[in-house]
Amino acid sequence: MGYNVAIVGATGVVGQELITLLEQRKFPVDKIKLLASARSAGKTMEFGQQTVEIEEATTEAFAGIDIAFFAAGGSISAALAPAAVEHGAVVIDNTSNFRLEPDVPLVIPEVNSDDLTWHKGIIANPNCSTIIMAVVLAPIYQAAGLKRVVTSTYQAVSGAGAAAMTELDQQVREYLDGTQPTAQVLPVASLPRHYQIAFNLIPQIDVFEDGGYTKEEWKMIKETRKIFHLPELPITATTVRVPVFRCHSLSLNIETEKKLTVSEARELLSTYPGISVIDEPASQSYPMPSVLSGTDDVYVGRIREDDSVACGLNLWVVADQIRKGAALNSVQIGEELIRRGLV
Amino acid sequence: MGYNVAIVGATGVVGQELITLLEQRKFPVDKIKLLASARSAGKTMEFGQQTVEIEEATTEAFAGIDIAFFAAGGSISAALAPAAVEHGAVVIDNTSNFRLEPDVPLVIPEVNSDDLTWHKGIIANPNCSTIIMAVVLAPIYQAAGLKRVVTSTYQAVSGAGAAAMTELDQQVREYLDGTQPTAQVLPVASLPRHYQIAFNLIPQIDVFEDGGYTKEEWKMIKETRKIFHLPELPITATTVRVPVFRCHSLSLNIETEKKLTVSEARELLSTYPGISVIDEPASQSYPMPSVLSGTDDVYVGRIREDDSVACGLNLWVVADQIRKGAALNSVQIGEELIRRGLV
Repeated sequence: MGYNVAIVGATGVVGQELITLLEQRKFPVDKIKLLASARSAGKTMEFGQQTVEIEEATTEAFAGIDIAFFAAGGSISAALAPAAVEHGAVVIDNTSNFRLEPDVPLVIPEVNSDDLTWHKGIIANPNCSTIIMAVVLAPIYQAAGLKRVVTSTYQAVSGAGAAAMTELDQQVREYLDGTQPTAQVLPVASLPRHYQIAFNLIPQIDVFEDGGYTKEEWKMIKETRKIFHLPELPITATTVRVPVFRCHSLSLNIETEKKLTVSEARELLSTYPGISVIDEPASQSYPMPSVLSGTDDVYVGRIREDDSVACGLNLWVVADQIRKGAALNSVQIGEELIRRGLV
Repeated sequence: MGYNVAIVGATGVVGQELITLLEQRKFPVDKIKLLASARSAGKTMEFGQQTVEIEEATTEAFAGIDIAFFAAGGSISAALAPAAVEHGAVVIDNTSNFRLEPDVPLVIPEVNSDDLTWHKGIIANPNCSTIIMAVVLAPIYQAAGLKRVVTSTYQAVSGAGAAAMTELDQQVREYLDGTQPTAQVLPVASLPRHYQIAFNLIPQIDVFEDGGYTKEEWKMIKETRKIFHLPELPITATTVRVPVFRCHSLSLNIETEKKLTVSEARELLSTYPGISVIDEPASQSYPMPSVLSGTDDVYVGRIREDDSVACGLNLWVVADQIRKGAALNSVQIGEELIRRGLV
């Protein structure tokens, strides 16, 4: 009746959220296997009523697994996902490792679930900011076409993992103690320079690549093009880390092919699955990260016509990037695979 | 030899910065008059070696004043600036009250100091975010023309005054104590709903006006058009409050008439007065608010070509909005008036 499910990286921020969501959404789990590094092996975690012993993630661990969620970093996915597929599992990979591979579907179920039909064992879960943006772009694209997209992001520290959340908390304590904040994690733990995030903004997410763009910015550009099957979509991004624990926000400027009024855009967005509109200027209602942590939808507000171009729209978008940006989207991919008989 | 100078709103965030800057820049002050509400009258503040008693801001207080800096809110400027002019003072007004009046020059000295020549007693200091953006747009406009500007802001709490800074500090303490943060100031003290800013983002700065845009967003649009004498300039803005004490940041997407390469843009920006370029991806160098508080320049980094349009540029801009965005710009207006014999 059910499926044997593995979670690779079970002890991480996304891994823990996967466990919560599989329970909450009554995912048809027969047996659960929680995999992590050798360091965590032997410890236990709760899954529903069960206490589950964490096992080391090795190639052999995937024997008998039907669905394997990977959320332990790109190098672990590179090393173990092919082995999981060889053992017969379908891999739903939360890392960037396979996302731009031509034979790996990159899927947001609300947006391009048909791409699941051609999977060859691995399905990639897009970047968190990309998912949040693409869900909002989808109904607008369907109704009015996309001519150009310009986004600036306001990304929470949890996007850089539990250590970055601890660092923000610690820096705030140091600030109140009057001591110099220590920084060891952000913007990128493995790079030489680290900066305070408390009461600061860091305009670097991930490493720098071509053209002065960061890898995060390229992810938003290239993954969005792949998801929409629009390889030439004109799109640009500036990604910024902000001192918020959870929920990514985006300022989104969209140029459509066909004119959309604010009320048309609001109607399109509010009726699309996975989107909630919070947009009442008169009552000061708009999406904010502090009140939306732990929720599933992508929230849109500040919907305005932008008359600096013929068909322009400005939107403000907030979503819990650990949920819809990562764990929830992965679980939804699993649910859709089951519904379509693709696992 | 010197000038009799009044500061209206001397006890506020901008007023105190004006006092500091007049001293630091050796502004030719003969007599200084510090004006504030009746509540502060009789208290004293330091100006250089002098201890100055604060006087109540009344129409009579401007007798004998040559230059009056106003930084006490729009209603005070509306009530008292005309009287100051009648007394023979030149008013440099930091509020939004006169900015869009056709017979009031709106001036950033680096950008449009020639507009000082037609002043009729009042010169308006632009909005803080507008100044920071316009300084960066100026050399690009001069060299390559402006076709369209899209900006998203990341604005510090000090833009809403000392009470908002206290509120952020207090909310962080409440967070660490495990109590619910209290909010009474942001986004707009006089509006019914107030939201936490610690670990949050508030996509509302000032009140809502036409088209779902906030007054702050309209300021950036309309004031920029006036400063550049480009009444039809296509420009749009999304303004957001972030949990940073001081320094506004902007993500700036610019479409020019003529193509600029990154190195051309960098050269134009780095040689323009009042701009410093911090832009070395290899050494993770870019402008950040935490390290630029209390500085005078507008800092630009993350300079990138945006190939989603023919002539696109992305920039990341940070400046201390109390300095260049307010007090410094006002003092520079005063200096330029003196240099040109216009006071």
